[in-house]
Amino acid sequence: MKNNIRLKEQDEYFMNIALQEAAKANHAVFPNPKVGAIVVVDNNIISSGYHKCYGEEHAEANAINKLNSSITNATLYVTLEPCSHLGKRNPCTDIINSKMFSRVVIAANDPNPKASGGAEILRNNNIEVVENVCTEKSKKLNRRFFTFFEKKRPYVILKIATTLDGFIAEPSGHSKWITNEKSRQSVHKLRSTCDAILVGRRTIETDDPSLTSHGYGKDPRIIIFDSKNKNYKKYKVLDKNPIIFSGMDLNNNPQENIIHVLSELYSKSYQTLLVEGGGETISSFLDSDFFDELHIYYAPKMIGNGKPLYTGYNTLAKDYKLHLHKIDHFDNDIKITFHKGI
Amino acid sequence: MKNNIRLKEQDEYFMNIALQEAAKANHAVFPNPKVGAIVVVDNNIISSGYHKCYGEEHAEANAINKLNSSITNATLYVTLEPCSHLGKRNPCTDIINSKMFSRVVIAANDPNPKASGGAEILRNNNIEVVENVCTEKSKKLNRRFFTFFEKKRPYVILKIATTLDGFIAEPSGHSKWITNEKSRQSVHKLRSTCDAILVGRRTIETDDPSLTSHGYGKDPRIIIFDSKNKNYKKYKVLDKNPIIFSGMDLNNNPQENIIHVLSELYSKSYQTLLVEGGGETISSFLDSDFFDELHIYYAPKMIGNGKPLYTGYNTLAKDYKLHLHKIDHFDNDIKITFHKGI
Repeated sequence: MKNNIRLKEQDEYFMNIALQEAAKANHAVFPNPKVGAIVVVDNNIISSGYHKCYGEEHAEANAINKLNSSITNATLYVTLEPCSHLGKRNPCTDIINSKMFSRVVIAANDPNPKASGGAEILRNNNIEVVENVCTEKSKKLNRRFFTFFEKKRPYVILKIATTLDGFIAEPSGHSKWITNEKSRQSVHKLRSTCDAILVGRRTIETDDPSLTSHGYGKDPRIIIFDSKNKNYKKYKVLDKNPIIFSGMDLNNNPQENIIHVLSELYSKSYQTLLVEGGGETISSFLDSDFFDELHIYYAPKMIGNGKPLYTGYNTLAKDYKLHLHKIDHFDNDIKITFHKGI
Repeated sequence: MKNNIRLKEQDEYFMNIALQEAAKANHAVFPNPKVGAIVVVDNNIISSGYHKCYGEEHAEANAINKLNSSITNATLYVTLEPCSHLGKRNPCTDIINSKMFSRVVIAANDPNPKASGGAEILRNNNIEVVENVCTEKSKKLNRRFFTFFEKKRPYVILKIATTLDGFIAEPSGHSKWITNEKSRQSVHKLRSTCDAILVGRRTIETDDPSLTSHGYGKDPRIIIFDSKNKNYKKYKVLDKNPIIFSGMDLNNNPQENIIHVLSELYSKSYQTLLVEGGGETISSFLDSDFFDELHIYYAPKMIGNGKPLYTGYNTLAKDYKLHLHKIDHFDNDIKITFHKGI
């Protein structure tokens, strides 16, 4: 019994180090998850690695390829179940050789049905497999990835740029610019980490935005929400092959429309959706259960009238379950990031 | 010429250390300024001190009292002109002995006419006096003190507690509570550093607030702004000898009313005024030139209707000259502190 407890503590200790490896990755891995791996022999870490970039080596390969193949009885700690499928790379289960590895410890099973099953393959190869060590930490590190597969919808980030008194535009709709250039650049960077970006029709008509990452990285696919099914002319985004959800796809129930759009985007494998406005679109999402992060930029202005950031009606008792995740500032602008429901 | 430049650099170097001493003080010194002093002989710092608490020894005394009186040719660096008047303590100029000190370097002259003149007295005692070394840093450290004497009005702090979408109460006026307990405690601490607290009549009628520091320190004097000159009943603050500015003192011009109230509070020596609401009172101050800090607490709620934090009308082009000073958070509430016009 005592030995089991000691082994469990040891596994958690090494898994936390593997998680630190995983956390070295940045959004270059998207839509893949951030994964770290370490190899332990006789309680010594002899190798480590993490998945650095989508399409490149997985964490397991980065840790194992450095090893001398004569080692035996090693334990591999990996923050996600080793993949079993031929994707951009060979299956990781192929390189976890039972001559070298007697044990594999896994933080979280792979929620992607195409890639999962690695644990079973390893067991069939006579390797001891321990699952669910520090699972929540691995999932937290990969909120976008796990939300997509577990909830079968994109991970949804709502972004608002507002005055201190809650207006996202003057009464005319004019909003250039509420926030400063540095704030807007940070939005361009955020866009480069997202697979799709959604705005309502009126935002296109009022702002004629480009909705690109402005060169910071990939451009998300543009999604337009248009329940009125209006005709579009001359707007910039029309050259970028947007997906338009029009009156034919939508009805008068904003919640049903959100479910429809998210389900379509899931089927097209868009893992992360950034919703940029306007007020009514953002408010529909805020009042749904279908968002994961809220990013609010406050500029040091007050205008007392205009387009409100939130168009619904609540009392103070309404609990949005918003948990403060991060505060940034860009000169005198402030960015507040909330996570929902953790 | 070279020697002069070197001496100037040396003076700035030591004054920065004296300023670090001054910065050790907290609001226990209010309404006195934060002052630091160091004694230098042959380029060595042989003593230092700062003013710790209102009514206790000044910085100069704390630095000089530790010294052996046989030292000669010392330089005293002090962040505020040594006082020349008999206040709670003997004049500092009395203890700066020309047998010990050949030079006194001062960051900022004392703006308080009752206490100033120290530099001249020292010169008359055959001590070389150098003024205006790191002046702005000393003034920045003592914004409340310098604003009071230089602008002949209290230093004004505006405090707002709001939802993310800019409402300070539900439509009924109900606002208990927008922010969480820790946020409210931080307001109680802020109150304990202020000499007076101002609210509009409607805030008294709607909230019946206590407006005290809740035991964190001294309670500010309560000031009520009541242009309608209504009768009050049974409200808590009436037991606390509030100063009520009523219709007899005020007119229909909010800006003139602010000037009148600030001038009265200056004449009563209230150095720092905290303005806590409601929306119209805060908005009148925001649209005046008569505020120095804006503290906004955001709670993670959106209600879409209610009493707005700002009741004026502007375009996005309006520049409030708000400079981000500090961001705090209390669990999921965020506090943003702006300074005006620096």
